[in-house]
Amino acid sequence: MSYYIEDLQPNLTAEYRKTLTETDVILFAGISGDNNPMHIDEEYAANTRFGGRIAHGMLSASLISTVIGTRLPGPGAIYMGQNLKFLKPVKIGDTVTALVTVLEVLQDKQRVRLQTECWVKGEKVIDGDALVWVPRRPA
Amino acid sequence: MSYYIEDLQPNLTAEYRKTLTETDVILFAGISGDNNPMHIDEEYAANTRFGGRIAHGMLSASLISTVIGTRLPGPGAIYMGQNLKFLKPVKIGDTVTALVTVLEVLQDKQRVRLQTECWVKGEKVIDGDALVWVPRRPA
Amino acid sequence: MSYYIEDLQPNLTAEYRKTLTETDVILFAGISGDNNPMHIDEEYAANTRFGGRIAHGMLSASLISTVIGTRLPGPGAIYMGQNLKFLKPVKIGDTVTALVTVLEVLQDKQRVRLQTECWVKGEKVIDGDALVWVPRRPA
Amino acid sequence: MSYYIEDLQPNLTAEYRKTLTETDVILFAGISGDNNPMHIDEEYAANTRFGGRIAHGMLSASLISTVIGTRLPGPGAIYMGQNLKFLKPVKIGDTVTALVTVLEVLQDKQRVRLQTECWVKGEKVIDGDALVWVPRRPA
Repeated sequence: MSYYIEDLQPNLTAEYRKTLTETDVILFAGISGDNNPMHIDEEYAANTRFGGRIAHGMLSASLISTVIGTRLPGPGAIYMGQNLKFLKPVKIGDTVTALVTVLEVLQDKQRVRLQTECWVKGEKVIDGDALVWVPRRPA
Repeated sequence: MSYYIEDLQPNLTAEYRKTLTETDVILFAGISGDNNPMHIDEEYAANTRFGGRIAHGMLSASLISTVIGTRLPGPGAIYMGQNLKFLKPVKIGDTVTALVTVLEVLQDKQRVRLQTECWVKGEKVIDGDALVWVPRRPA
Repeated sequence: MSYYIEDLQPNLTAEYRKTLTETDVILFAGISGDNNPMHIDEEYAANTRFGGRIAHGMLSASLISTVIGTRLPGPGAIYMGQNLKFLKPVKIGDTVTALVTVLEVLQDKQRVRLQTECWVKGEKVIDGDALVWVPRRPA
Repeated sequence: MSYYIEDLQPNLTAEYRKTLTETDVILFAGISGDNNPMHIDEEYAANTRFGGRIAHGMLSASLISTVIGTRLPGPGAIYMGQNLKFLKPVKIGDTVTALVTVLEVLQDKQRVRLQTECWVKGEKVIDGDALVWVPRRPA
């Protein structure tokens, strides 16, 4: 299910969608240690501009890594870099679509540059780009 | 326990250390959906250049968010952006230190630029920087 | 499977045994927020007198609540108080036996006082006692 | 971020706040084995005096250990004892504040006695005290 570098061309896309549930947020807080009250204290969060608990930005961003590691390019690729802009908060219960689009293929260096976005209900919540090393097709 | 923008100055640092256990990797795979065999298939991973399963790059990177969200600047800050370079793989069982250092304080815009690194046994495994909005001290 | 107050008499016992795995410790750290490095940072813990990560004391103690809430007296009882002495550390991988013994039955007040202990490999690791309200047998 | 015994004095306080979500209760039931229907059977619990599922008393109490192990006194301290009175039930969804206050400092024995409370919406739900060994400041 993986792409080799020879298979990649600009504008190819893949996506992964998931609802970020309260369970995901509690588990993410646990494994990361990020106990910021915005994520685990509903009374605190209700009194902020966001009006309630939000998901960790890096939890939404992790869905980008899911697309890269399992679909485009998929297993065998090596994640070299990821730039992220957090544009809007994601609330607990929001369904996030991580969308990856090929921007540029560097055949010589076996690298691909990808546009990486997350969307919720038609609004972009994360923007950015990634750099990935991709294996050549076996001879 | 949080910093206001007036409290921040270059070279302030904070860190968070955690051993990335198999449990963390399995749970991260579950909540992110990133089931790349490098993380969950020991037989596959043993036959790659890494010689065994590695932790998700975004799992190590999440420890950076822990420092930012709980220590420097801490609760009340808003994460605006994060750039990441994945330099070396992190194996299951490695202890990762996420280190955050203030690079630049933009008092007018209430923003701080942070150097963000992860280290394992004296080697830098992730490099990058983050942009964070920080509240003013209440009058 | 529950006892009514009329059924209880001194020296009745019940127990619950469980191996405290790394997974249990990571999950307990997550839901409690107790990220003390003794529990989540193997490099730190290896350099302490304990020689490695230990389980949270309250995780072992929770097995006492399991006996009280499910076996002696069981569902319907109300947990009023618990005194705990942490005598020895419990290492990740140790199998803990929580042992509850009836000390005293206060029929009038519908209360029972219980001795509550945890044991690992023949050594007592937690000692203490609990006070529990127990329902009367329906007429 | 830890206190040494020389730094401690009566009335010092620290706290940790967390909403006890359904996820926390289910995970706590899983790792402790406390499957009392008050915590995991909504139909059973709805017909009791509490009107619905409640969180495990030891789950709320665990937040006390979080304050002790991470903030006051913090890493390096050793938990010797904990006495707990469960005053009121905590419902799923309640936000619990664990509050720790220094009662007495025993410099000779390197011990501190702490008042340990949990609060929900202005009502005390757990009361008690703890005994902790605290390291001396290195010479």
